[in-house]
Amino acid sequence: MRPVFYTQEVKAPNSRARAGAIHTPHGTMQTPAFIAVGTKASIKGITPAQYQELGIQSLIANTYHLYLSPGERLVEEAGGVGKFMGFSGPIMTDSGGFQVFSLGEGFGKKLSKFLPEEATREAGVAHYDEELATSHGKLAVIDEDGVSFTSHINGSLHRFTPERSIEIQHALGADIIYVFDECTAPTADYEYQKEASERTHRWADRSLKAHRRNIEKNNQQGLYGIVQGGRFEDLRIESAKTVGGMNFDGYGIGGSFSKHDILGILDKVNENLPEEKPRHLLGIGEPEDIFIGVAAGVDTFDCVLPTRNGRTGGIYTKDGKIQIPNAEYVNDFGSLDPGCECPVCKNHTRAYISHLFRTYEMLGPVLASMHNVYFLTNLTRTIRQSILDGRFEEYKESFLARYKK
Amino acid sequence: MRPVFYTQEVKAPNSRARAGAIHTPHGTMQTPAFIAVGTKASIKGITPAQYQELGIQSLIANTYHLYLSPGERLVEEAGGVGKFMGFSGPIMTDSGGFQVFSLGEGFGKKLSKFLPEEATREAGVAHYDEELATSHGKLAVIDEDGVSFTSHINGSLHRFTPERSIEIQHALGADIIYVFDECTAPTADYEYQKEASERTHRWADRSLKAHRRNIEKNNQQGLYGIVQGGRFEDLRIESAKTVGGMNFDGYGIGGSFSKHDILGILDKVNENLPEEKPRHLLGIGEPEDIFIGVAAGVDTFDCVLPTRNGRTGGIYTKDGKIQIPNAEYVNDFGSLDPGCECPVCKNHTRAYISHLFRTYEMLGPVLASMHNVYFLTNLTRTIRQSILDGRFEEYKESFLARYKK
Repeated sequence: MRPVFYTQEVKAPNSRARAGAIHTPHGTMQTPAFIAVGTKASIKGITPAQYQELGIQSLIANTYHLYLSPGERLVEEAGGVGKFMGFSGPIMTDSGGFQVFSLGEGFGKKLSKFLPEEATREAGVAHYDEELATSHGKLAVIDEDGVSFTSHINGSLHRFTPERSIEIQHALGADIIYVFDECTAPTADYEYQKEASERTHRWADRSLKAHRRNIEKNNQQGLYGIVQGGRFEDLRIESAKTVGGMNFDGYGIGGSFSKHDILGILDKVNENLPEEKPRHLLGIGEPEDIFIGVAAGVDTFDCVLPTRNGRTGGIYTKDGKIQIPNAEYVNDFGSLDPGCECPVCKNHTRAYISHLFRTYEMLGPVLASMHNVYFLTNLTRTIRQSILDGRFEEYKESFLARYKK
Repeated sequence: MRPVFYTQEVKAPNSRARAGAIHTPHGTMQTPAFIAVGTKASIKGITPAQYQELGIQSLIANTYHLYLSPGERLVEEAGGVGKFMGFSGPIMTDSGGFQVFSLGEGFGKKLSKFLPEEATREAGVAHYDEELATSHGKLAVIDEDGVSFTSHINGSLHRFTPERSIEIQHALGADIIYVFDECTAPTADYEYQKEASERTHRWADRSLKAHRRNIEKNNQQGLYGIVQGGRFEDLRIESAKTVGGMNFDGYGIGGSFSKHDILGILDKVNENLPEEKPRHLLGIGEPEDIFIGVAAGVDTFDCVLPTRNGRTGGIYTKDGKIQIPNAEYVNDFGSLDPGCECPVCKNHTRAYISHLFRTYEMLGPVLASMHNVYFLTNLTRTIRQSILDGRFEEYKESFLARYKK
């Protein structure tokens, strides 16, 4: 039996929306589900003891970050990322592909396409122009074999290949791991996007082989392929067909820098992915996106925004997002999101949380993050129930009519 | 009946150590007890929902800070500081005296003794040299009537008198409030210390009268007097006798900038305070201090260090304090304090918490603060049990023999 598999309970009649469950060695997630982001083996500001009351079923940690610190061997020694952080439920690790590129972009890293194929062939292994890499300081250089990149922490030089990413993810020991993929800029032209997408397919194949070679890990961890192709519908469909045909345990979609690249063509992507496998939309999960995703057949979502917004006082409510430090909330004795059943809303007012932010108390970001993660978690849970009850479209319309983007 | 009163259960045979209870309108504290510091109506990083599992019985919020933001009227409108922050247990508010002076010192505020008595008398009310105050930016100017000071936030000018401090504390609505006192520098000479101590006694009398005038609040809040006198034994004893004779609901000791001013003469201070009233040692509460305090007859303690140390990775253990971000803990899979029963130690390792600090994850300060507050809380609880069991001296010796300062 596969270590990770999907069972469907109910499919909505007029869309791809479906309710089901993803079974993993560390428990079952009921889907659709929001997967909280725990990049460095921590959902920022939230203790694992609080997960249950917030409804958090699972989190996604990051291979790039945990590789840099504390290092995958330490996490392995601790018994894997779950034991390391004190959480016994299902965990995913992203392959690090996105961060290798995005943390370059974010810090002005120069993205070099790739070195001449001949050079790579001659070297037999990874080839990178060390002078170029170190002179630019922050850089990701792609070749057929993998990516050489500098750490966003100290500029030191590192290298990921599909095999190395899988090896690190085997050490980290999450239930669901991902193939190593190349993330492209949303502005990349068709030619480059096609090249990158095809390289990602070759990397997917190498990732899968590396995973299969390790029989012990292969029995404990499920491997998801990743659909790429940027904003180009034909490339996305081609990618879904290719990766979808490779017999992964599930599929990640996305890995692009702009969600507009993918939301419009999600339905066509999922049409070409196997029905019986779980599908995760990588890094996208604002309320409006979740409805689009679920309607297109996505099972799970992750997004940093609930905690990132929370840290600066951005609060999700059924009426849209509000900035709680704003003057209008200083003497508002209602809860963050009226009617919300989360532990923050049941015990605290907008006035109090506004005060915490206005006086730089760290409890402000903590409570705001708790509420926001609950909000997204509860939204997917309510969506799931609406599918089970045969009224997903109805719920979607009523939610979106009220929610101001 | 008094809104706040003390009942004694057991007194140790050869010291002033005692176990008892402080009864307040929002519940009973079992003593000796550690009162967590919640300056701005928040124990930094800890949610009120977590207090119970950490054993937190009570907290001390601060009048100066809450007066500046969000303002005492807003807190009153919320139903008092407990309702405002979502905590239903007993709360204290410090009078603001300490902060009026210390936040000046801390930020290079010029401490002016006080203006010529004649000037004060002529003015009839508060007199301060506005030009001096605003030109120096950060300043506290004392006169017989009160203190004019600049906000540490924006330099704006404010004024506290004993009556104003009590008025603010009535609005904040804590169970236990304090008289407004003058805190002196540890280097202050005998003459100045005597003057300040005597002024503090006059302010204590005015605070008490202001409290008694408000019959409604007087029935809901207990007022503690404060013993001053700096490092001078005779002044401390004189202060204890004077303030002790004023029929407060309890007594605060300290309010100095150096704990060495008071620990050595604590026993003599308490000898001169009424036995039947609770005694709180203001702002002092490291493990070794707590043993000295309990032996000298102190019932409650507060101290910012558990949370302040916690935020930078300083962890209390039975062997002394450790710095968890240090390299030696990176691969230490033991708990923060082996044998500790706190929720952090039961679920997390030193290696994990070291990782959180080393990668700047906010969960690190949260978990460290939780453990540290539990540590002090549990220490006083264990001390209490040792008094009840008639083995306080024994426990004190065994704890201190192991604990490295």
